[in-house]
Amino acid sequence: MTERLVVIGGDAAGMSAASQARRRRSSDDLIIDVFEMTQRVSYSACGEPYYISGDVPNLEQLIARTPAQFSQQGISVHLGNTVTEIDTDSRTITVLNGRESRVVPFDQLVYATGARPVRPPIEGIDLTGVFHLKTLDDAEAIKAAAAHAKNAVVVGGGYIGLEMAEAFHVRGITTTLVTSGAVVMNRSIDEDLGAIVTAGMRERGIAVRPGHRVNCLADEQGHVRGIQLDGGVLEADIVILALGTRPVSELAAEAGIRIGPTGAVAVDNRQRTSVEGIWSAGDCAEALHRITGRPANVHLGTVANKQGRVAGINIGGDDATFPGILGTAITKVLDIEIARTGLSQAEADSAGIEAVTAITESTTMAGYWPESTNMTLKVTAERRTGRLLGAQIVGGRSAGKRIDTFATGIWNEMDGLAFSMMDLSYAPPFSGTWDPVLIAARRAYERAM
Amino acid sequence: MTERLVVIGGDAAGMSAASQARRRRSSDDLIIDVFEMTQRVSYSACGEPYYISGDVPNLEQLIARTPAQFSQQGISVHLGNTVTEIDTDSRTITVLNGRESRVVPFDQLVYATGARPVRPPIEGIDLTGVFHLKTLDDAEAIKAAAAHAKNAVVVGGGYIGLEMAEAFHVRGITTTLVTSGAVVMNRSIDEDLGAIVTAGMRERGIAVRPGHRVNCLADEQGHVRGIQLDGGVLEADIVILALGTRPVSELAAEAGIRIGPTGAVAVDNRQRTSVEGIWSAGDCAEALHRITGRPANVHLGTVANKQGRVAGINIGGDDATFPGILGTAITKVLDIEIARTGLSQAEADSAGIEAVTAITESTTMAGYWPESTNMTLKVTAERRTGRLLGAQIVGGRSAGKRIDTFATGIWNEMDGLAFSMMDLSYAPPFSGTWDPVLIAARRAYERAM
Repeated sequence: MTERLVVIGGDAAGMSAASQARRRRSSDDLIIDVFEMTQRVSYSACGEPYYISGDVPNLEQLIARTPAQFSQQGISVHLGNTVTEIDTDSRTITVLNGRESRVVPFDQLVYATGARPVRPPIEGIDLTGVFHLKTLDDAEAIKAAAAHAKNAVVVGGGYIGLEMAEAFHVRGITTTLVTSGAVVMNRSIDEDLGAIVTAGMRERGIAVRPGHRVNCLADEQGHVRGIQLDGGVLEADIVILALGTRPVSELAAEAGIRIGPTGAVAVDNRQRTSVEGIWSAGDCAEALHRITGRPANVHLGTVANKQGRVAGINIGGDDATFPGILGTAITKVLDIEIARTGLSQAEADSAGIEAVTAITESTTMAGYWPESTNMTLKVTAERRTGRLLGAQIVGGRSAGKRIDTFATGIWNEMDGLAFSMMDLSYAPPFSGTWDPVLIAARRAYERAM
Repeated sequence: MTERLVVIGGDAAGMSAASQARRRRSSDDLIIDVFEMTQRVSYSACGEPYYISGDVPNLEQLIARTPAQFSQQGISVHLGNTVTEIDTDSRTITVLNGRESRVVPFDQLVYATGARPVRPPIEGIDLTGVFHLKTLDDAEAIKAAAAHAKNAVVVGGGYIGLEMAEAFHVRGITTTLVTSGAVVMNRSIDEDLGAIVTAGMRERGIAVRPGHRVNCLADEQGHVRGIQLDGGVLEADIVILALGTRPVSELAAEAGIRIGPTGAVAVDNRQRTSVEGIWSAGDCAEALHRITGRPANVHLGTVANKQGRVAGINIGGDDATFPGILGTAITKVLDIEIARTGLSQAEADSAGIEAVTAITESTTMAGYWPESTNMTLKVTAERRTGRLLGAQIVGGRSAGKRIDTFATGIWNEMDGLAFSMMDLSYAPPFSGTWDPVLIAARRAYERAM
């Protein structure tokens, strides 16, 4: 008997699930319908700041696959369709398309609604010239507005905040980043490393105003004129609010699907929710953190793709498990690279793991190599065992991707001493004889023991 | 009672051993004498091609520490002192300094004589204008000769060969690399990847003449005029012979210290030789290959530093073990990065391990990122288990250091599927959503199962 798979949400997680299920089950066996509330599926949200900056000239470059391509694969994509209800008893969803509402039955369902930007109660948030960055439509609108902008304010010191500050700066717009934290990136890396990034941004011409919570935007005839700070109005003709994202889990909650402690949909390691035949993956779903052993909720394309793949393989009749996350992430602002994996000292503390942290100042390449730049590594290890728990890196070109070596070592539960003796690559254009990751891991180990 | 530690050879392995021993034992407890036959210690041989190219302007930049600095640490360095004999019965060495010979007693001895370039029976090898690259003196002589050179021939397609070809090319010298292999780098990476490097070098203006074994150099009044090939003389006013290096183990062999199957000094995982109180480390010593389980002999600063450190810690009274190698290495020729770790298909075959190999064509960054370049990854996995055995990478900027992620996974005996689901970093300026190493590992796994 033919089954129907309904996928709610057509981005990384949803489309990965659909594709993997399709590979394993033919259209005779499994009908696949994807309902996507926007007008596009399968795009790189992470690439949007670089479209706005001009690094990526065409929006189409950010689109991995079109609905037509999915259609050829036997996956029906329904754009502009918002799912308003999931009925787990009748096993149907209600879909709204414009003003028309219809009921669609399902046998299997993938809940992949993603995340949405936080919209705090800021006065003036709906003025023209004020944007969130989420969809490709957002990116287009921001790019159009940026073409005429002279002063930009980016509110928020996280990944999107930094990337948008870079984008405006690259376009020649006078740019200020305003953050409530003492430094930028303070939810991802420790304050000492965040201070290095903050100073680096200022040196490169991006103003940073830390310690400011924005409550009010100034307006001029309906258009934003700036943001209200204690000392007066910081002028801006374009304002980006990059205050984080939250999982879109309400629809699942209303349907009685269990929501976990993070506010995202609870799933097991096969991406099954609490309701038989309903799966969830991506930003809206939880993921097991391998070190804390607790559910986490991160909003990253890497995790969304992997979880979607796992769901799709299982729906397809094969067996896959999602092994959990370390919270690995990377970004850059101009030529400053920032990366992290695992737990910081503070995160270890709050997880109840006794930890120590060591900082290592080094260089990205051999010290005498002309393109070598400073690099700071911070490694967290468990007290008494020396087991690696986390790492943070800030540095110039080629610093950031070293986080993957740490992530692989942490994934395998290596201690810092064992890690430090691994056979990693060396040549002067690439590192010192002891790659700095080895030295940094050893220092954390020595401090832990 | 005060002991005396004698170190033969003052480069990476020897000086690491001396330093680590000194940290743990005071001068009252341990006298340390280092005998070095050249006029310098503790320098970066790997940096020499970049001194010749001009990337590194001053020779001093390649010197990590001077004899004076070691002296302050309580380590006596004796330059220009060649050890001619080790007597394990009387526990003495004989040292030649110019014409003077003396006998020095030891309690502990570190044999760290390194490696020397292969000098095959080529007619004309002693002509002026013909060089090997090993010491800083060699580097100075080559740089001086290169200042007037118009045509350079580099014989040998390995690491030094490529780096020297780059150095001459960067200096504006018309450069030809001649190798006996079908492609360059054929002892480190497979022929298909070597072909990519070979083609890339040619595109960038370095001539490559594969399949030529050089037997004879042409001369003009005692100076090299070129190399004799089948089709005539290939003109050159400077010729580098980069035909590999061999461990300097004769002195140890004559002393009755056991030599292993590789021709290098046999050591255990504490760097002990077959003779009590005599240790060996670096290019002259063997190292356990973690995958084959057999002794190997690689000539790399990474291994020399680590083994020297282990020997020194043990001599110092603490306990350290050297965990073995994977044969991880990296280099570049112009903007082409080349890296490898573990076993290739051919190496697995000769080690008696049933293996499969998968090639993945990808890009260094997100496909739409303007600086993204092609990258080819080749991954070897054990048949039936899917365990990762090795990886090779050729690509543009930021391709090469990804080998460390593979090395860390292989070190931990991961299979390709587990590896592919790891939480690695992603942002468009750094990789695709699935870092290519993940995809490459999965493909190898799928082929293996």
